[in-house]
Amino acid sequence: MSESARPRALEIVAVATRLFARRGYDGVSVRDICAEMSVNCSTISYYFGGKRRLYLEVLREQFAARGRALDQAVARSADPREQLAALCETMRDLEAEHPHFSALLARESGGPGPEFQQVAREFEAGPGGRLAELIRNGQRQGVFRAGPRAEHLALVVGLMLNGLAAARVFESPDAPGATERDYFEAVKTIVLEGLLAPPGEAESGHRLGKQSAKPRGPLGR
Amino acid sequence: MSESARPRALEIVAVATRLFARRGYDGVSVRDICAEMSVNCSTISYYFGGKRRLYLEVLREQFAARGRALDQAVARSADPREQLAALCETMRDLEAEHPHFSALLARESGGPGPEFQQVAREFEAGPGGRLAELIRNGQRQGVFRAGPRAEHLALVVGLMLNGLAAARVFESPDAPGATERDYFEAVKTIVLEGLLAPPGEAESGHRLGKQSAKPRGPLGR
Repeated sequence: MSESARPRALEIVAVATRLFARRGYDGVSVRDICAEMSVNCSTISYYFGGKRRLYLEVLREQFAARGRALDQAVARSADPREQLAALCETMRDLEAEHPHFSALLARESGGPGPEFQQVAREFEAGPGGRLAELIRNGQRQGVFRAGPRAEHLALVVGLMLNGLAAARVFESPDAPGATERDYFEAVKTIVLEGLLAPPGEAESGHRLGKQSAKPRGPLGR
Repeated sequence: MSESARPRALEIVAVATRLFARRGYDGVSVRDICAEMSVNCSTISYYFGGKRRLYLEVLREQFAARGRALDQAVARSADPREQLAALCETMRDLEAEHPHFSALLARESGGPGPEFQQVAREFEAGPGGRLAELIRNGQRQGVFRAGPRAEHLALVVGLMLNGLAAARVFESPDAPGATERDYFEAVKTIVLEGLLAPPGEAESGHRLGKQSAKPRGPLGR
């Protein structure tokens, strides 16, 4: 693609991303995308060769942004704890700026189409594998818990980091909607520290109006 | 419904659950369900009045099982830590016995249909709210971390407890598939304890072949 063609192609991808996230692959036609942009439908064929390849482009861009987030987080520090904390923050900012990935993922996760499967496989074989690597490093260094395999922990952490749209299904009808900030603060707390209060906090439970709780060791250890 | 009619109706719900989980609401017709069971299609109309109400029944049954899991976990102990640990185990067994809910949820989470929205709302206003309550209790007693709101933590925990099907999108193409046991062991570790190793474990990091890690306090506290 020539340099001058790039801005128009990027604009098509941006509009397509928003529409696919909102209505799913089957709910969007090339005609819908053209109508939204007031361009001739042949423009999309010219740049992408059709809807299927445009969707592949949309997915590749979204997954690539996640790959960069992983790279940035790993580059930020040599300490796996700080890498994971940085990843939670980068993913929060990514979700706030581009809320389409968690929606696309939620749409596809029940029965991924061939395009999504292809791009997810490419990602997991490449940058996606770095999350398990980060966790494995932390386990080797003794700063993360030994026990569950890094791949299984990465499965759960990956879900949390990309699951805001899916998590909203469990949102209380009475409580006001959680923001990305609320969600990722909860993720970061749970991922790094878990829900168990450190012994000091449990002992000072009186500041929350209770004296009854006795601090104990973590369950099952 | 008369008592004698019940087994046939339950059988229809069981077959429908499996098909809806596999192919989604739009991918299943009443005819498909009848063909699978070798019954006349009028039987479904007779018991359920059509596909939409059959799907509502499927969803209500699945959500009700989650409600019972919450009740059982809460009844098991007065300690919120043990309640949450029990919930992880009950949900693991539920996923192993009935792997359809996480698949139904994954299908619906991207753009929930009116039936799913209705049943999810009913659930969140009732039994679903008890997860946030469990976490809130733990925070009040000082055994769970103060900080993030219980509703936001419940959003993340709810996603993990019901997200196995969605998490599989992030499964490594090289690693063998995680079982329910692997997944829920990882969830339980992360939810209750987080990834940070307790100081003792970090100090004994040499047993994993590294001496470099120095134990530190949890991040950001």
